[in-house]
Amino acid sequence: MWQLYQFPLCPFSRKVRLLMGEKGIAYDLVNEHPWEHRPGFRDINPAGRTPAMLNSERDLTLSDSVAICEYFEETEPAKPLFAGSATVRAEIRRLVAWFDSKFYAEVGAPLLQEKMIKRLFYRQTPDATMLRHAMRAANEHMEMIGSLLDHHRWLTGTTITMADLAAAAHISVADYLGGIDWAGHDGVHDWYAAMKSRPSFRPLLDERMGPLLPPPHYGDVNF
Amino acid sequence: MWQLYQFPLCPFSRKVRLLMGEKGIAYDLVNEHPWEHRPGFRDINPAGRTPAMLNSERDLTLSDSVAICEYFEETEPAKPLFAGSATVRAEIRRLVAWFDSKFYAEVGAPLLQEKMIKRLFYRQTPDATMLRHAMRAANEHMEMIGSLLDHHRWLTGTTITMADLAAAAHISVADYLGGIDWAGHDGVHDWYAAMKSRPSFRPLLDERMGPLLPPPHYGDVNF
Repeated sequence: MWQLYQFPLCPFSRKVRLLMGEKGIAYDLVNEHPWEHRPGFRDINPAGRTPAMLNSERDLTLSDSVAICEYFEETEPAKPLFAGSATVRAEIRRLVAWFDSKFYAEVGAPLLQEKMIKRLFYRQTPDATMLRHAMRAANEHMEMIGSLLDHHRWLTGTTITMADLAAAAHISVADYLGGIDWAGHDGVHDWYAAMKSRPSFRPLLDERMGPLLPPPHYGDVNF
Repeated sequence: MWQLYQFPLCPFSRKVRLLMGEKGIAYDLVNEHPWEHRPGFRDINPAGRTPAMLNSERDLTLSDSVAICEYFEETEPAKPLFAGSATVRAEIRRLVAWFDSKFYAEVGAPLLQEKMIKRLFYRQTPDATMLRHAMRAANEHMEMIGSLLDHHRWLTGTTITMADLAAAAHISVADYLGGIDWAGHDGVHDWYAAMKSRPSFRPLLDERMGPLLPPPHYGDVNF
C-alpha cells in the first residue's frame, strides 16, 4: 500500500490525490507539515516538500508531484490523464506547469502564508496588501481558464486530463482560503462544479486544516 | 525549423538546448529578455517566461521547459534522455524538478538577480548577503550531487539522462556568475568536465551575456 505524505491544504498533494482517485489507486494519508522540517521526512524526500510517497513493501519512495503523476500514468495507464497527441500532451504539461508555478507563486503561496501559516502557526494577522494582490491575480487566472473553456468542456479538449486536475487542485486551496471570487466567471464555475462532483474530489472537500474553516460554499457542489 | 526564445543565461533554456543538441534537432535562437515584458512574446508564451519554442511551418508553439523536453522525448525518441524503468524515470524527473525548483530558487535566481539583472539593467551593486547565501546553498547542492556520483558515473546510473542535462544547465549559469566553488568537489568536477566536453554543451559555453563576462575557468574543459 502507498503512503502519501501531505497536509490537507497542499495543492501539489491534492493534484496527486485527484490522480490517484481518478485511477482508483489505494493509498493511506500521512500528515506532514513541511515547514516544521521533521528530520525523518528528509529520508523520504530530501527536498523536504510534500507530496512524497512511500511503498514499504516495494522499498520505493517517490517525490515531486510531477514525477509522481508521470510515474502513475506510466504504471497505471488504464485511465489515462495525459491522453492525446504529443502536441496535446505538451499542452497538458504546459498547463500543469502554469498552475504549479505561476498560479501557486501568485495566488496559492501568498494565501497559504498569510491565511494558514501566519494564523495557525504564528498567531499573526494576514497582510491585507498581500491578500489583495493574490485575489487580483486569482481573478486574472480565472479569466485565462474561462478563455480556455470557451472552446471545449475541459481545459485541453473533450476529455478530462491532468491539466484539469492540476487547475482544480490549486483553485480548491485558494477557494478554501477565501481567495476566489466566483462572480462573473460562469464558465469556470460550471467546470469547477463538474470537478467537485467527481468521486475523486469528494474526500478532499470534506477535510479541514485544523481549526481553519473554509467559506460555506467551499464543499457545496451546487455553489 | 524551430525557433527557441531565450537569453544566454536562462538555465531553463539551456536545459532545452542541451536536449536539442543531444538529440541533434536543429533550431534558431531568438533573444528574449522576459523581464522586459515585450507584448509580442505573450502571444508565444502567455506565462511570459523563457524558454518558448515556435515552429511557423507547423503553426506550433511550445512553452515550459518540462513540457518542451517531454515533447521532444516523445517525438524524437532516437536518443532517449528519460531511459529506464518507471522507477528510474521517476528518479530522473525528481532530479530535474530538484534543479528547476530548489537549485534555481536557492542559487540560480538570486545570482541572476544580484549579478545580472542588477548590474546590467539597473546599474546597481549586488547584495553581499544574498550572494553569500546563494553560494552556501550552491555548496550544499554540490554535496548532494557528489553523493549521487559516489554510486555511478551519471546522476541516475550508467547512462546520461535529462537529470544530468538539467543539473549541468543550472550549474553552468551559476558558474558563469561566479557562484560555484569547485574546491573539494572532485567527483562533481569530473562529471561536469565530462558534460562540458560534449558537443551539445560547446555552443552554450562560447556565448556571453552582453558585457557580463564569466570567470576564466568557465569555458575551459580542463578547469
